[in-house]
Amino acid sequence: MAADGDVDQRSETQRAIVEATYAALQTHGYADLTIQTIADEFEKSKSLLYYHYDTKDGLLIDVLKDGLDRFATRNAVDPDATPREQLETFLDRSLPATLDDETRAFRLTIFELRSQAPMNEAYREQFARADRLLYETLVEILERGIETGDFRDVDPAYTTDLLLSLTDGGMTRHLVTSDDARVAARDTLDTYVESTLLAD
Amino acid sequence: MAADGDVDQRSETQRAIVEATYAALQTHGYADLTIQTIADEFEKSKSLLYYHYDTKDGLLIDVLKDGLDRFATRNAVDPDATPREQLETFLDRSLPATLDDETRAFRLTIFELRSQAPMNEAYREQFARADRLLYETLVEILERGIETGDFRDVDPAYTTDLLLSLTDGGMTRHLVTSDDARVAARDTLDTYVESTLLAD
Repeated sequence: MAADGDVDQRSETQRAIVEATYAALQTHGYADLTIQTIADEFEKSKSLLYYHYDTKDGLLIDVLKDGLDRFATRNAVDPDATPREQLETFLDRSLPATLDDETRAFRLTIFELRSQAPMNEAYREQFARADRLLYETLVEILERGIETGDFRDVDPAYTTDLLLSLTDGGMTRHLVTSDDARVAARDTLDTYVESTLLAD
Repeated sequence: MAADGDVDQRSETQRAIVEATYAALQTHGYADLTIQTIADEFEKSKSLLYYHYDTKDGLLIDVLKDGLDRFATRNAVDPDATPREQLETFLDRSLPATLDDETRAFRLTIFELRSQAPMNEAYREQFARADRLLYETLVEILERGIETGDFRDVDPAYTTDLLLSLTDGGMTRHLVTSDDARVAARDTLDTYVESTLLAD
């Protein structure tokens, strides 16, 4: 699965604005985000910001699109890897065993933007698109692995839906409670994969 | 599992303030919540609000505590029910097959407050407490059901962690994408329970 190319179609200025918005979101959070806090992180003039984006909401949709493309790209699989390796990579990106600062900051930004999705249809469309991309990628990995005999003969659609909810819920429970929750959720995920999915 | 009694220890005025905050959160969302929007939903004087709560943040922690107590109470199980019935009730409250307006509004409020937890330790403590309560309740249901023969001889701790992440992730994917996602997640949950947990 590749990103849909939008990332590269952005101009250098748009790219810099998107990066400034990430930085502002990570410093201030969604609730305290203003055009001014974004401008503070942006090296060029504030009028350029308005030239490219009419509203804060329009800018945030674009940031979200960028972020989900990045996430989808990070979850892209090496076509030369075995299905087992592809699955491992996919799951480790969805629910990392350890979180470096950059990944954590990125996941937190997406997490905060997610909280706006129930109230905002344009956000929901972006999250639905990302969910679909992840779903299709994982179904393909499972189908190939069943064919090659790496995986047991499970139902790919059911197992994919289960794994997506499991990693999503595990990550959320981690972010809103403690690091211990991620370790537990990751153990649970590994146990599920080993006991149910991997062929002996 | 019972709520810890805090709900009842609130004075009538505090109760009214908490209710006004729910209403304001549901109308304006977290990002646009101000003491004024809460006061607008509160029938008594704004000074009473300040008398009971020094800061908006202190008030929101109390609302969160109340909300999670309610959620825990809703997830409380009838001690006279069979383990199978208890499990059904628990899962149906965690990831409802259908969502009425009131339940949806409540879940959205909790969902929005959750987005603040990574930045706020007092919030994280409340969510960690709620997660622990749900965990203990579900482990007990499973242990009892394994004893009675209603459930297979699964590992209660592993299965509980899996079910909590699965219902959490399913609900989140529903709220941030579409109604279809909840139907799919619920089907997946039911299939998991039937194929892995329930005794023949």
